[in-house]
Amino acid sequence: MRAALMYGAGDVRVGQVADPALKEPTDALVRVTTACVCGSDLHPYRAMSAAGGPVRMGHEFIGVVEEAGSEVRTVARGDLVVAPFAYSDGTCEHCRAGLQTSCVHGGFWAVGGADGGQGEAVRVPLADGTLVRLPVAPDDALIPSLLTLSDVLGTGHHAAVRGGVRQGSTVTVIGDGAVGLLAVLASRRLGAERIVLMGRHTARTDLGRAFGATDVVAERGAEGVEKVRDLTGGGSPVVIEAVGLRPAYEQAYGVVRAGGTISRVGVPQYEEAPIGFGTLFGANVTLTGGPAPVRAYIAELLPDILEGRIEPGRVFDRTVDLDGTPEGYRAMDAREALKVLVRP
Amino acid sequence: MRAALMYGAGDVRVGQVADPALKEPTDALVRVTTACVCGSDLHPYRAMSAAGGPVRMGHEFIGVVEEAGSEVRTVARGDLVVAPFAYSDGTCEHCRAGLQTSCVHGGFWAVGGADGGQGEAVRVPLADGTLVRLPVAPDDALIPSLLTLSDVLGTGHHAAVRGGVRQGSTVTVIGDGAVGLLAVLASRRLGAERIVLMGRHTARTDLGRAFGATDVVAERGAEGVEKVRDLTGGGSPVVIEAVGLRPAYEQAYGVVRAGGTISRVGVPQYEEAPIGFGTLFGANVTLTGGPAPVRAYIAELLPDILEGRIEPGRVFDRTVDLDGTPEGYRAMDAREALKVLVRP
Repeated sequence: MRAALMYGAGDVRVGQVADPALKEPTDALVRVTTACVCGSDLHPYRAMSAAGGPVRMGHEFIGVVEEAGSEVRTVARGDLVVAPFAYSDGTCEHCRAGLQTSCVHGGFWAVGGADGGQGEAVRVPLADGTLVRLPVAPDDALIPSLLTLSDVLGTGHHAAVRGGVRQGSTVTVIGDGAVGLLAVLASRRLGAERIVLMGRHTARTDLGRAFGATDVVAERGAEGVEKVRDLTGGGSPVVIEAVGLRPAYEQAYGVVRAGGTISRVGVPQYEEAPIGFGTLFGANVTLTGGPAPVRAYIAELLPDILEGRIEPGRVFDRTVDLDGTPEGYRAMDAREALKVLVRP
Repeated sequence: MRAALMYGAGDVRVGQVADPALKEPTDALVRVTTACVCGSDLHPYRAMSAAGGPVRMGHEFIGVVEEAGSEVRTVARGDLVVAPFAYSDGTCEHCRAGLQTSCVHGGFWAVGGADGGQGEAVRVPLADGTLVRLPVAPDDALIPSLLTLSDVLGTGHHAAVRGGVRQGSTVTVIGDGAVGLLAVLASRRLGAERIVLMGRHTARTDLGRAFGATDVVAERGAEGVEKVRDLTGGGSPVVIEAVGLRPAYEQAYGVVRAGGTISRVGVPQYEEAPIGFGTLFGANVTLTGGPAPVRAYIAELLPDILEGRIEPGRVFDRTVDLDGTPEGYRAMDAREALKVLVRP
């Protein structure tokens, strides 16, 4: 079959890979009908060494079950399903605690031999713990919104949940990518009253306003920090960091209020960063977040999409076929596209 | 009057300083009857440059009000009072939120011209927001326990509260200094069932067991991490870091369970440290803590001391007079004493 492969920074190609097949009785084989490119795919797109390539890509997909292993109980041939960006058994202590990204038997797509979502088909391990059936057709108009259950909506929701957003909250969201915008939507959905969005791409921040942002701050650095501190009367009680680069983290501890919480969902492209007296400790700031256990959130978020209360699929502003995937990366990297849908 | 002064690393002397006097109508003048040396005083004792000295020392004291400014309402001449390690107005938004260490008008003893507690008397700014009257005599047998309300008991309690300790919790406490031991006591008081204390000074860990530790791990580094992960079935849901040095922080993210919380109350002697995918982010670990707003906790903790339910004063194992303060530092630094009481 054909799939997207990353050969190194800036070099994505579509090529032949081995056809996936069931290996374990808990596997399912899914024919991908819709996938997409993630902001986090741009990290290797900008930095990956050619020595490590080629690697499979993509961790967000919807597809039709072609074949289910003998022990699979919850999905069957012909079902349309959505896959979270991590697969998980659904039964270990972490899964039962709602932390599927730490599943003791789980893993991530396109890592360690697992298939990637940007391709024609995927072998899905632990299908019962991983896949969720969707009660629509593969070409339903809701598909873009449903695809955000794979990652960006659940990730924005996780950021808000971990940040403690509730009725009346004041929240600052750093980053106007798809996750940042959906963190705005998720914060509004949980009742936040004041939502400051830090971003400077007007088309994106306009969508952020449509999702519920009450204020937009385009300034960065010290100027941006001062503006947010002014707007929030001395600092934001909740700050969502939806970028993953160190300047965004620095922005976060700059704008957070004493006693407040920084919730990170942008995958950190750094390991060490300041957490001492002058940044987190002195003001009793809490740092939380991590890879969202989106599988845990699908049951809660799905009805809001099906019943039209939220429309997270608006983050998709371009569609390509599988051959168009390299162009999708390029357009997102150049910030010509916010998020690119792939229809293999 | 006479007070302890630090001239540089390893060099504490008792000398003459200016007599304190009221400056503001919200001040009180307190004659110190009991003070002590803190584990955090050992950080400058080990590292302070002589170029910065001499500086006043001490931030924990009980004393008798000698004079109160015209606007002071809650304490009066003759009252025995305890001072938290930070002074605060009690009325700003942070104080009202119970975060007195971030008071917009507050500050810390022996910093920025404020008096230190290791001396004969202290000018206390913002007396109403800072001091709490004690219903005992200055020589009461409960004084050592009451003095822990200044810092170490409230700090241990803060660590447990921020860590989310509740009925049935499993907690690992890193550090067998006074704060670590009182974090054990505070965790037990809040209902923790399993309390693993990491420390290797038997006299201290024995006191930790008396305070409620169910397990003691003397090993450090990878060996200590493995032992705690074994004891807690894969990692501790709550980890209290009561040291402030980077190896203790590294121990903390080593032993914490996925989805768990590291609550720091040891003042970090580092600014940058690992917080990326491999340490905090990947496992959705929350990092919290900071300088304890001990003023907020006195009302809750005081009755437990007065009614004999807890005896945190057991952390004091040596008493000196003011002239003995340098010897107190030496003994604590050499780990001959756990915590030294000073009776000026």
